[in-house]
Amino acid sequence: MNKSADATEAFDIAIVGGELLTISNDMSKISDSFIGISDGKIKLVCSAKEMRGSVFFAKKTINANNMVVMPGFVNTHAHLAMSCFRGIADDMPLMKWLHESIFPLEKQFVDYDMVYYGSLLSMAEMLLAGITTCADSYFFEEAIVKAGIEAKIRLIVGKGFFDPPNIDSVVVEKIIAIAEKFVTRCGNISDLIVPAIFCHSPYSCSPQVMKALKNVARENDILFMLHLLESADENKIVFDRYGQSPVELLLVNDILDKKTVAVHGVYLNANEIDIFAEHEVKVSHNPQSNMKLACGVAPIARMKKANICVGIGTDGATSNNRLDMFSEMSTTAKLHKVSALDATILPAQDIVRMATIDGAKVLGIDSLVGSIEVGKLADIIIVDFNAPHLTPVYDYYSHLVYCAKASDVYATIVNGSIVVFNNEVKTFDVASVINNVNKLKNVITSHYSV
Amino acid sequence: MNKSADATEAFDIAIVGGELLTISNDMSKISDSFIGISDGKIKLVCSAKEMRGSVFFAKKTINANNMVVMPGFVNTHAHLAMSCFRGIADDMPLMKWLHESIFPLEKQFVDYDMVYYGSLLSMAEMLLAGITTCADSYFFEEAIVKAGIEAKIRLIVGKGFFDPPNIDSVVVEKIIAIAEKFVTRCGNISDLIVPAIFCHSPYSCSPQVMKALKNVARENDILFMLHLLESADENKIVFDRYGQSPVELLLVNDILDKKTVAVHGVYLNANEIDIFAEHEVKVSHNPQSNMKLACGVAPIARMKKANICVGIGTDGATSNNRLDMFSEMSTTAKLHKVSALDATILPAQDIVRMATIDGAKVLGIDSLVGSIEVGKLADIIIVDFNAPHLTPVYDYYSHLVYCAKASDVYATIVNGSIVVFNNEVKTFDVASVINNVNKLKNVITSHYSV
Repeated sequence: MNKSADATEAFDIAIVGGELLTISNDMSKISDSFIGISDGKIKLVCSAKEMRGSVFFAKKTINANNMVVMPGFVNTHAHLAMSCFRGIADDMPLMKWLHESIFPLEKQFVDYDMVYYGSLLSMAEMLLAGITTCADSYFFEEAIVKAGIEAKIRLIVGKGFFDPPNIDSVVVEKIIAIAEKFVTRCGNISDLIVPAIFCHSPYSCSPQVMKALKNVARENDILFMLHLLESADENKIVFDRYGQSPVELLLVNDILDKKTVAVHGVYLNANEIDIFAEHEVKVSHNPQSNMKLACGVAPIARMKKANICVGIGTDGATSNNRLDMFSEMSTTAKLHKVSALDATILPAQDIVRMATIDGAKVLGIDSLVGSIEVGKLADIIIVDFNAPHLTPVYDYYSHLVYCAKASDVYATIVNGSIVVFNNEVKTFDVASVINNVNKLKNVITSHYSV
Repeated sequence: MNKSADATEAFDIAIVGGELLTISNDMSKISDSFIGISDGKIKLVCSAKEMRGSVFFAKKTINANNMVVMPGFVNTHAHLAMSCFRGIADDMPLMKWLHESIFPLEKQFVDYDMVYYGSLLSMAEMLLAGITTCADSYFFEEAIVKAGIEAKIRLIVGKGFFDPPNIDSVVVEKIIAIAEKFVTRCGNISDLIVPAIFCHSPYSCSPQVMKALKNVARENDILFMLHLLESADENKIVFDRYGQSPVELLLVNDILDKKTVAVHGVYLNANEIDIFAEHEVKVSHNPQSNMKLACGVAPIARMKKANICVGIGTDGATSNNRLDMFSEMSTTAKLHKVSALDATILPAQDIVRMATIDGAKVLGIDSLVGSIEVGKLADIIIVDFNAPHLTPVYDYYSHLVYCAKASDVYATIVNGSIVVFNNEVKTFDVASVINNVNKLKNVITSHYSV
C-alpha cells in the first residue's frame, strides 16, 4: 500500500471506491480504493477500508463504485488539427493519399483557425476517451498550445518541419532559429505544455536539417520525433537519394538516442531493431493507421523482445479515423496475434502498459505520469464497468483491452483538474467547437471535390 | 423515392429527419428523410420535404435530426450465452483454449438458467449496439428463444449438435428426431424466431450425423450452419480421420448448398472458394475472433471476387470478447487492407453492406430485412452523429465504419417495436440481468480457477 499522508489531510479531490489499477512496476491493484489529490498531485493511495474512521476533507469526492480507476492514456502520436479532414479521403494507398489528397488539402486549408478548432475538436474526443497526454506533430503550434491550455490536456507539442525547396547553410541557420524561438516561447508557458521537434520523415527532411534540429532538441533536452519506415516505398526513396537506408542515415548523422521517437517503424529489420535497442530509441506504434493505409504490420513483438520501449499512437484522424486508445489497444492485441499466428503474444496486461506507462516512457515523462503512485501528477481516468458489454468481470485488463469503449469513460482528470465528468467535457464548449469545425468543412467542400 | 402510401395514413412510428442510408441495391440516400412504420413494416419512405403540408398521424414520432437512419445490423454468428464466460480465458491458442478452458467450462456450467441470462445479457449488448438480427448457435435453445421473445430481437436459433461417443444408425435416428422436434416446436413460436441446425464442425460431428441433419434442414427449408476451417489444424485432423479434407467431406455428403452457412472459412483455398461459389454456400466472417485466437485471416476479398455472399459475425464473447458490429466493421476493413497491402480493398460502403444486407442474404432473410424499403420489416437503427468523433462528415459510410461506436446508437427498432431509445433498452430490465449474471459468475469462480 502506498498510504503516505495523514488521514486528516485535506484534498482537492478524493476518489473513493472502485478497482484501482496502479500500473506501477509491480502492477499492484487495490479493490475498493481511495485516492487523495491536491495541488495537481497524487497525495494518498490506499484502500477505502484504511480510511474508515478517519476524518478527511475533500472539495470534491468522486464515488467510483463498480468502476475502474487507472492512469490516463498516453497517445504517443497524433496530428490533432487533421480531424477537420476526418474521412475526406479513405481507402487509398499511402503515397497517393498523401500526394493527391492530404498535402494539397493542407496547402490550401491549414491556417491558425483550422488548427485551433481542429485541435480542440480532437482534444474533446481524446479527453472523453480517457487520453490525458498527447504528443502532437503539426504546424501553427501556437494554435495547438492555446487549444491545449483551454482544454486542460497534457501536450507534447512537436513543431513540424519539412525541407523548403533549396537547402543551404543560410536556410539551415534560419530553421535552427525558428526551432529555438519555438522552444523558448513554448517551454515555460504552462505545466501542461512541453515543446518538441517533429521532422516529417527522412524522405521529406534532408540529413542536414534533421541533424541541425536534433542538435536543437538535444541542447534543450526535448524530444525529437519523426515518421520512420511507415511504408515499404520509403527505404527505396531514401536509398536512391542518399545511398543509405533511412536508419543508416539517422545513425551516421547522430540522430538516434533515447530522446528520439520513431513513429511507425513498420519496416524496421532485425539489424535496425538492434540499433534502436542499443541507442534506446523509442517507438510509437500506430496499428490502425498502418492497417487502414495498408502500410504493413510493425514488428512490435520483436521490438519488445529487444527491450525497445513501445507506446501506442492514434495518428491523425485522416488516417485512422479516430483518436481512441480503446480501439487501438484492442487492435494492437489482435493484430499481432494473428500476424504471428500466436495467441499468446501481447497479453492484455502488456497492452494496457503500452497505452499508459510505456507511452509515458516513450515521451520521457514517466517520472511524472503513466501510473498512479504517490508523488506523481494526477492524470487519472475512471471507467464505468456497469454495462452489459463489461459484465461479468473475471479480469479487468482483459475487459479494458477487449471490451471497453471510449464511451465507458466516466471521468478524466488531468493534472488534478476534472476535465471530463459524467461523460461531459467540463473545460470548454464542445458544441461551439463542433459548430466552428462544421463551418470550416463547408468552406473545404465548396473548394475541394470529395 | 419510395413514397407509396397516402399522406393521411396513420403510422405506429414516424422517423422524421436524419440522413437515410437505405442500403437498397442502388444504395440510395435521402437527406432529411421520412419513414412511416405500421404493423411492424416499413409503409412509407420519402423525404421529409415531400410530407410538408400533408396530414399524418403517428403514435410515436422520432426526431432523427443530425442522425443517420439505416437498417439494423445482422450478426451472422454468435454463441450468446457465452457472455457469462466473457474474458475468463484470453491470450491462448484455439485448440488449447477450447479443450482446456471452454469445453470443461461448458460441461460444468451450461444449463437452462445460464443460457437464459447469458443470452439476455448479450441481447442487451447487441440491441444497444444496433444489432437487430442475430444467428445464434448453442444449446438449451428453449432458453434462447424465451430470452429472444422477451428482448424482442430477431433470431436465427441454431440448435447445436456434437457427436455423442458411439454413433450408429439408432443414434443417428435419435438425433434426427431431436432436430425435427426442435424445428416443429420452434418454427411457429414467434415472428422473431427462425429455427436452424448448427453442427459444431467437421472435426466434432461425423459425416453421417451432418448428412442426416442437413437433410432435416433441407426438408424444413431452414439454414444449416457449421464452423469450418477456423484453424490450420482442422484440415489435418479431418484428413487423418476420413482421408478427405473438410470441404471434400461436405461436398461428397451433399451438404453444400445455398442454405449452408460456413462460419470462419479462414483456410479455404482457391479450389474450395470455387466450390463454394458454385454451390452458393454462404460465409460468416468473424474477423476479431480469428485475430484474437490467432487463427488467421480469411480470404474474404477473394471470396467476394468469386461472388460468394459474406456476412460479418461477432462470434461468442469468450473469443472476441464483445458483440459489436461497429468494431467488427472497422476491423474487417482494416485487416484485409493490411493483409493484402492494398488500401483500396473493401471500401467503407462494401463493409456497411456486409454488416446489413449481405448478412441478411447469408441468413436467407434478405427479402424481409437488411435494407430500408417499403414492404420490408421495420428493423431500423438511428445513429447519433452529434459527437466530436463523428465531426465533420464528408462521407457517412466512412464514419460508420471508421469512427462510430456502439454507444452512438440512439434508437433500435426491431419488427416495428422500439427496443432501444435514448441509449436504453426498453424491453427488459438490464440491471436485473446483470445482477443474475454476476451471481452465476460467483458460482463459476468458486469452482473454477481463472
